[in-house]
Amino acid sequence: MQGLGHSQSARTTMDVENIQRRLREFSAAREWNQFHSPKNLSMAMTAEVGELVEIFQWLTEDQSRHLSTADLERVSEELADAQIYLLRIADVLNIALEDAVLEKISLNDEKYPISRAFGSSRKYTDL
Amino acid sequence: MQGLGHSQSARTTMDVENIQRRLREFSAAREWNQFHSPKNLSMAMTAEVGELVEIFQWLTEDQSRHLSTADLERVSEELADAQIYLLRIADVLNIALEDAVLEKISLNDEKYPISRAFGSSRKYTDL
Amino acid sequence: MQGLGHSQSARTTMDVENIQRRLREFSAAREWNQFHSPKNLSMAMTAEVGELVEIFQWLTEDQSRHLSTADLERVSEELADAQIYLLRIADVLNIALEDAVLEKISLNDEKYPISRAFGSSRKYTDL
Amino acid sequence: MQGLGHSQSARTTMDVENIQRRLREFSAAREWNQFHSPKNLSMAMTAEVGELVEIFQWLTEDQSRHLSTADLERVSEELADAQIYLLRIADVLNIALEDAVLEKISLNDEKYPISRAFGSSRKYTDL
Repeated sequence: MQGLGHSQSARTTMDVENIQRRLREFSAAREWNQFHSPKNLSMAMTAEVGELVEIFQWLTEDQSRHLSTADLERVSEELADAQIYLLRIADVLNIALEDAVLEKISLNDEKYPISRAFGSSRKYTDL
Repeated sequence: MQGLGHSQSARTTMDVENIQRRLREFSAAREWNQFHSPKNLSMAMTAEVGELVEIFQWLTEDQSRHLSTADLERVSEELADAQIYLLRIADVLNIALEDAVLEKISLNDEKYPISRAFGSSRKYTDL
Repeated sequence: MQGLGHSQSARTTMDVENIQRRLREFSAAREWNQFHSPKNLSMAMTAEVGELVEIFQWLTEDQSRHLSTADLERVSEELADAQIYLLRIADVLNIALEDAVLEKISLNDEKYPISRAFGSSRKYTDL
Repeated sequence: MQGLGHSQSARTTMDVENIQRRLREFSAAREWNQFHSPKNLSMAMTAEVGELVEIFQWLTEDQSRHLSTADLERVSEELADAQIYLLRIADVLNIALEDAVLEKISLNDEKYPISRAFGSSRKYTDL
């Protein structure tokens, strides 16, 4: 079960460039670029997230934190599928994903000041 | 618009460890870990993917490949949101995401042999 | 708040034909039929379900059973949006929705025999 | 293939009360009410919509309008699944769905005046 690892080194970084290149070659070799419009890829990502949600739908929150080995492996696979399409969309549209993520985290720091957001799950517009 | 970059160096790798640590601290500082069960996070990811899909829903595939600057920025933001929740789920469940992704790419190589999958969008079970 | 009703008579039946006719006329009057391919409508439905899920994402299951009036009204609106696209897809593809629903309920009766499914949320393939 | 019908009479109305009663009995007989919180049901609906989207994801819009018999049957089944969970949520939360739908259609008439919305897929906030 390579997808589940506990070593810190294994998850330090993600070689986005390598993954995107492999996905690009995979798609090109099968002449699938014609299907890989951002519109279609967003649908594929939806379907994968649907499969992820299906694993959790009848579990309690607590059960979702303590998954069986089999369920953990399924979650790992669906997360990977979602990640693949997410990286593919970013590649096709030439979006610098890490920059976008870091920018969003900074933005969330402003939108959810600790003093107001502490212990509350309300949306920033309601704080 | 930091989220949109064209330099190769900007997207070479993603510092997953750094992002997950920042998300962990963000959540801990607001006492939000109580809300961040994998079940809930998968729902949050669903909502973000829904916002991504909303951008594309009435566009043709071709239009989705050639977005306006405003739409490209919106896509970048929604992708970032989805990526944030995806990394958060992986962190909470201690899943080594890159390993899972690479494993899935290898699996897809077997499931979709070039000779059969060439130019076809059919699911591997139908090939 | 017409969307929330307690009278039994109000929800006895749904005049699908009338709703689909109104949606058809609404779309035709705006020349939107060009956008209303089943593919696009399924994306629009995804976006609406994403908004529904967003209401519930940080709530406990118990809280989701006892919504505030404001949240209940929001759920009512998002359900209506999802229902509208669902009926529109059925209309565009000429699918007899009620028949499909009743057929599925009968199928589920077979897939989930009471003796095996009692108190279990496992999928029928795991029963 | 009872799910696909062409007779107008077959789709005139949907007996919501009957369907909701059958779903209620189905759930009660299996002691599944414990799982049927609105939160969980919205996740189940997400998963079904994901399966619907999966059918359309690699099809062109035109292909989605002219489905094969097999794909049409699959769409019919996934629509039915989504409809079942939608009706179940409405029942559990005592929402008068048809009223909510009609209210929404009236609202859309105001938000999208024909003069401005004609031939445009822009969101009402951008009109």
